[in-house]
Amino acid sequence: MPTITAFAASPDRGQGLARDMRIRWAMEEVGQPYDVQLLTFEEMKEPPHLARNPFGQIPTFEDGDVVLFDSSAILLHIADQHTGLWPQAVGARARAISWIFAAVTNIEPPIIDRDIVTYFEGDRSWAAERMTMVNERVRQRLHQLTAALGDAEWLVGPFSLADLVMVTVLRRLGGSGILEEFSNLTAYVARGAARPAYRRAFAAQLEVWEESQRRT
Amino acid sequence: MPTITAFAASPDRGQGLARDMRIRWAMEEVGQPYDVQLLTFEEMKEPPHLARNPFGQIPTFEDGDVVLFDSSAILLHIADQHTGLWPQAVGARARAISWIFAAVTNIEPPIIDRDIVTYFEGDRSWAAERMTMVNERVRQRLHQLTAALGDAEWLVGPFSLADLVMVTVLRRLGGSGILEEFSNLTAYVARGAARPAYRRAFAAQLEVWEESQRRT
Repeated sequence: MPTITAFAASPDRGQGLARDMRIRWAMEEVGQPYDVQLLTFEEMKEPPHLARNPFGQIPTFEDGDVVLFDSSAILLHIADQHTGLWPQAVGARARAISWIFAAVTNIEPPIIDRDIVTYFEGDRSWAAERMTMVNERVRQRLHQLTAALGDAEWLVGPFSLADLVMVTVLRRLGGSGILEEFSNLTAYVARGAARPAYRRAFAAQLEVWEESQRRT
Repeated sequence: MPTITAFAASPDRGQGLARDMRIRWAMEEVGQPYDVQLLTFEEMKEPPHLARNPFGQIPTFEDGDVVLFDSSAILLHIADQHTGLWPQAVGARARAISWIFAAVTNIEPPIIDRDIVTYFEGDRSWAAERMTMVNERVRQRLHQLTAALGDAEWLVGPFSLADLVMVTVLRRLGGSGILEEFSNLTAYVARGAARPAYRRAFAAQLEVWEESQRRT
């Protein structure tokens, strides 16, 4: 059975924003059981974990000789090993991969930049001014995404890994109010989060957080 | 023959930093001829190109029914269609994909952030202060990368697509002086840029820039 790593106590307090959520969701979509090894922040920076991921982050994935890091790379591997996460039309798998890279390299960076402003620049006099600029970069990308999605239910034909990644990226905007400016994207995220596999994955990661609180 | 899109006049003035360079390099590595459609900035935002890439960027890739965007997604497709860009050991292709995502989601974003400070925040009083913070984020990632590469020639066994992506990401630090603080990474980038396929690709994109200058 494959083993993934996750936060022993996630900084998001069980909101499902840590990237193990993406792996859990994919595993639930394809019906693949998995083990979870929980790591403290200290353990993430120690040699055994750095051998899995040189950047000391979660999640990682181990299955026999296969040792992977980066949530998107793990997701591609899972989708290739099972059926159900790739669209079937000619060229559609490659097009879905285009959307996955767009999600994590084009849309997610300005969203992460909001966290950088909040947590690393929050004490600077210019933090509010820069947050306004970052929010405009986020909106610019969402304007492009909202036009591309239009009335479609999912990005490439039926639900695919592209949607799993995009929905989890967009969820990181929760609380900002920005996603709510785009009604089709709001409905899209809600559609993803309503999937039974999503809900099982969400419950599993929330249980880890709640258990961590019972221990302390 | 596949067709890619590229800048009619690249903002980098032929330094090979635009992302069509990555596709050209891969095509040269596998010996696949290709056509290039050059686009102005205006054409990149018009419906024919937005149908290829909803974000209005280059490069895109078209080959029959397959229409792709995002340079990394195009590279994965090329590597899957030809031999020579994936390592052969068990699990090594998936590990190379881990490195590709690390390059474009973990290392490249703070490098791009340097450009954001320069071009979009350069007129703010706090630009120098923020550039210092961004440079520290870049260095933190390079410290992790330099430890992971160590004395190895390439990231995963022989030269692979992971190196093609990482070398082109690191080249974007040119002129900052930061890469030169890491001797094994400096040598690594030089090793990549010395490959005959790299040199042919570089010459091809430079010729586009020089031709654009002869026209004006």
